[in-house]
Amino acid sequence: MGGRAERLLARLGDASLDALLVTDIVNVRYLTGFTGSSALALVGPQSRVFVTDFRYVEQAAGQVEDGFERRRATGELLDAVAEALGSGELRLGFDDAAISVRAHARLGEKLPDRVELVPAAGLVERLRAVKEPAEIEAIAAAAQLADAAFAGLLAGGLVGRSERELALALEQAMRERGAEQPSFETIVAGGPHGALPHATPRREPIRPGELVVIDWGARLDGYCSDCTRTLATGPLADPDAADVYALVRGAQRAAIGGVRAGRDGRELDSVARDAIGAAGHGERFGHGLGHGVGLQVHEAPRVSQRSEDTLQIGNVVTIEPGVYLPGRFGVRIEDLVVVSEDGCRVLGSLPTELVTVD
Amino acid sequence: MGGRAERLLARLGDASLDALLVTDIVNVRYLTGFTGSSALALVGPQSRVFVTDFRYVEQAAGQVEDGFERRRATGELLDAVAEALGSGELRLGFDDAAISVRAHARLGEKLPDRVELVPAAGLVERLRAVKEPAEIEAIAAAAQLADAAFAGLLAGGLVGRSERELALALEQAMRERGAEQPSFETIVAGGPHGALPHATPRREPIRPGELVVIDWGARLDGYCSDCTRTLATGPLADPDAADVYALVRGAQRAAIGGVRAGRDGRELDSVARDAIGAAGHGERFGHGLGHGVGLQVHEAPRVSQRSEDTLQIGNVVTIEPGVYLPGRFGVRIEDLVVVSEDGCRVLGSLPTELVTVD
Repeated sequence: MGGRAERLLARLGDASLDALLVTDIVNVRYLTGFTGSSALALVGPQSRVFVTDFRYVEQAAGQVEDGFERRRATGELLDAVAEALGSGELRLGFDDAAISVRAHARLGEKLPDRVELVPAAGLVERLRAVKEPAEIEAIAAAAQLADAAFAGLLAGGLVGRSERELALALEQAMRERGAEQPSFETIVAGGPHGALPHATPRREPIRPGELVVIDWGARLDGYCSDCTRTLATGPLADPDAADVYALVRGAQRAAIGGVRAGRDGRELDSVARDAIGAAGHGERFGHGLGHGVGLQVHEAPRVSQRSEDTLQIGNVVTIEPGVYLPGRFGVRIEDLVVVSEDGCRVLGSLPTELVTVD
Repeated sequence: MGGRAERLLARLGDASLDALLVTDIVNVRYLTGFTGSSALALVGPQSRVFVTDFRYVEQAAGQVEDGFERRRATGELLDAVAEALGSGELRLGFDDAAISVRAHARLGEKLPDRVELVPAAGLVERLRAVKEPAEIEAIAAAAQLADAAFAGLLAGGLVGRSERELALALEQAMRERGAEQPSFETIVAGGPHGALPHATPRREPIRPGELVVIDWGARLDGYCSDCTRTLATGPLADPDAADVYALVRGAQRAAIGGVRAGRDGRELDSVARDAIGAAGHGERFGHGLGHGVGLQVHEAPRVSQRSEDTLQIGNVVTIEPGVYLPGRFGVRIEDLVVVSEDGCRVLGSLPTELVTVD
């Protein structure tokens, strides 16, 4: 973890910054090892300072990297920044995508004139996007745990159980296997409800002969997994359901086949989008193909038409095309992959063929 | 819920605003009824507009108040603001405590010159701080559910079970009773670990003869509960534990006795703080006495030395003094109260006497 602050320092120079104020709590964790909910860090060539409040002083003593000097804030965390800065003129980067207009104004008032605040969002996020081997192992372990919990869920059957009951059972199964928590709110959506990409599980029972979208993930040692499968509960009543499933599956396989370092996120998104568009369902795939996963379930890089990222070795991204037919059904198939020089490795072990579970 | 937008409009005039851009998703829910994770609202005398993205169009159709015109954003939500605004010069309030420096800069670029962006954080939060009767009922129902789950947990005993196992069991019991989720990560902290006010449950077993701090809450129909009890697992090994418990309990009772509309949050905090300070433990009570609870588990008003709020009829706040002796133990006792004209009503039914559970 010590190497992370060094890598960040190397990037500060590229951005003509003397130091970086790190306020996003996930970035603080990444750099310092602290897992609490309230802290900030300052990283510069002369100083590495970690600031938390009363509640976390003991926890920080046990967690924070030795390279950081630990301080306890007596008031607002940001008010401790001024005294933690060295002397002399300073270009101080801050996370303009995370710091609010109000906090920025307050920070500006507290800092001496010699300190210039420079918008510098994304510096730590870009480090985080390229996973270390141990991080990939952590994500793989979370995915494996989530797969096992899912297999256990299916063994109990789907039909007649409510979406909510299934979602809770899956989340509980992940916790019992050691997950700190689900990495996001589990989606279980049967039939027409599956046409809502972010459906909230209802008290409605799963019915026979429909498609059921299940999107779930585990957080283990801080790292997230993210997976989606769409299942059939017996012979499908909707005459187009099997074809749409095959379409989405084909698009997902094509996209996974197209992953490699050096490819633009936008271009990879197009691989799946073109396949779905050619079948006349382009309008029904309303979200991006994928996103990075790590300490957060959504992080850099983006894989979508709005992406400005190029895939790098060590990125971990989801590949999750979907087609949603309002009032009828939805299909989404999602896997996590690790980008390598000439391809990718799928984390997780679940097949993508259409599985029928009563 | 329609009345909420009207009440907000009345406050816009006081702040010399023509309209308010509402971006905090909890505020959007409060005003519109939408429970998804991505949306914004514009509220002005001429227009009430709700904007969400592709994923939530169907859900919004079923949830959003009739008074709002619903729109679907094709790109970033904030980019839809310009086209949703009427013509003419406009002072548009925005939430400077929630909007990032970057989003604010982007918004400024997209808006025509006739629109002036005015910092206006807290307008909706101040409405939310005063609960409607149905909201108080919702919080009371969440508290009742959480109390029942807690009673069930204690029936299974504490000693020998790990903190983590107990926390998971309590969370699962809340879900089984209908909670959407815990309103925050449950704390179960035995012995010296209880001296960390925000302790993360460990795999360590609870031991006999120690104090155990349990802090938990349920979210039900969107509304949160929040409660803490400190229990004894048999005759206490630390000779000061019983006295400190009695001290904290006395401070909590004094503070609850001091709640009434018109009292300053700071002054109420002092009621408990002075009692604890008089016993020589002032330095060991390092957090505020309490905070508002509603759609969020921490919201307005504040009850602490940093509070600038005055209690109003209909506020729902926690009263939670604590004393933390590093390396030894912690005590915190927390209840939710509804502020009334001349006192308060405690939500929840758990006694505060020291309970012993093996």
